[in-house]
Amino acid sequence: MIKSIVLVSGGMDSLVTAAIAGQESDELYFLHLNYHQRTYKKEQECFHKLVEFYNPSDVLEIEVDYLKKIGGSSLTDESMEIKDHDHTGEVPSSYVPFRNAHLLAIATSWGEVIKADRIYIGAVEEDSSGYPDCWESFFKAMERSISLGTKAETVLEIRTPVIHMTKAGIVELGNRLKVPFQYSWSCYRNNDLACGTCDSCVLRIRAFELAGIVDPIPYEVNK
Amino acid sequence: MIKSIVLVSGGMDSLVTAAIAGQESDELYFLHLNYHQRTYKKEQECFHKLVEFYNPSDVLEIEVDYLKKIGGSSLTDESMEIKDHDHTGEVPSSYVPFRNAHLLAIATSWGEVIKADRIYIGAVEEDSSGYPDCWESFFKAMERSISLGTKAETVLEIRTPVIHMTKAGIVELGNRLKVPFQYSWSCYRNNDLACGTCDSCVLRIRAFELAGIVDPIPYEVNK
Repeated sequence: MIKSIVLVSGGMDSLVTAAIAGQESDELYFLHLNYHQRTYKKEQECFHKLVEFYNPSDVLEIEVDYLKKIGGSSLTDESMEIKDHDHTGEVPSSYVPFRNAHLLAIATSWGEVIKADRIYIGAVEEDSSGYPDCWESFFKAMERSISLGTKAETVLEIRTPVIHMTKAGIVELGNRLKVPFQYSWSCYRNNDLACGTCDSCVLRIRAFELAGIVDPIPYEVNK
Repeated sequence: MIKSIVLVSGGMDSLVTAAIAGQESDELYFLHLNYHQRTYKKEQECFHKLVEFYNPSDVLEIEVDYLKKIGGSSLTDESMEIKDHDHTGEVPSSYVPFRNAHLLAIATSWGEVIKADRIYIGAVEEDSSGYPDCWESFFKAMERSISLGTKAETVLEIRTPVIHMTKAGIVELGNRLKVPFQYSWSCYRNNDLACGTCDSCVLRIRAFELAGIVDPIPYEVNK
């Protein structure tokens, strides 16, 4: 009996990760964090649709205000601009300081109580925006922190099944797993339609193009 | 210029840790977490008095509801009993699953934005309640997770200056550093006066007795 917690943001990487977790687990538990990021309503809507679609054993929906209070990211600080995609290689301003550690800590606390076996997170290392909290070495270190900082009987493995995949590979795999891409939101800008020009949109559009699959969501740039 | 974030709960260990941090740092930043634990009002009052007393450069006061939602601890689940102190050696029911990881993650996000150098936490390893998230090995692993999961230029050291001290040693040191022990709350029960019989009260009372110092707070058991 494998009980797995999946961090489901409402984006495409965590959606495909949820589908993989579903194949590898007996029970799924979906965890969603609203951290007052610009697009939280869009992501929350997607999450609710994914809960309907995948029907997990339980759901934990959390809201925190501290990441916005702390700021330092264009996703939470509305006075900072969401920049168009560039190729500087620097950590982009959309980086939310140490965000994935918060997600893993919440999943661990929950996992310790419900006696889960695994935490799935849809981080992507190479073909992504260059966030330091998406590196595999970070997840290995967090797994060790979790092992040492919880009860002896708590054994939680962190699984990152798409971490070394390209975005196009993730789209292809999601397509094979028949994931509902129409219920995913990637854009960093909080417009009615996805902008098509921010870091996250550019990576998504390119991925669908390379995979030769039609992205079912509409974009502003195509209007 | 050393900028230090101190996790100040309102208890005696973090109070003495704050005094030590004050000696070792140029600027202090106090972080307090209300996680809807039973005694949050008492701890918050102490925290506010300590902010007045130590006058840090900045203060971050955070409230989260998810640790109570997740439960699994007698400190957050009011249907669970706060037990009197025993000597079984097991992790007590007051353990809040992975709580210190949340505190460190919040401190790290804040520290990354304000470019802090250190995070001080008043964990005690040996002479304490046996919580796994108080072991030095856990803090070393978290320090590595922080190093790997943040920007290259972010260097945050976790300092645990009282981790190998006895509770009595902490009282003695606090006394030498003239900390205001009257502004600290240790009791797990949310009564008007500290109960004097829960794990936390028993450890505190014994510590003051061994140190030969009068605890300035009143106890129910002495009434």
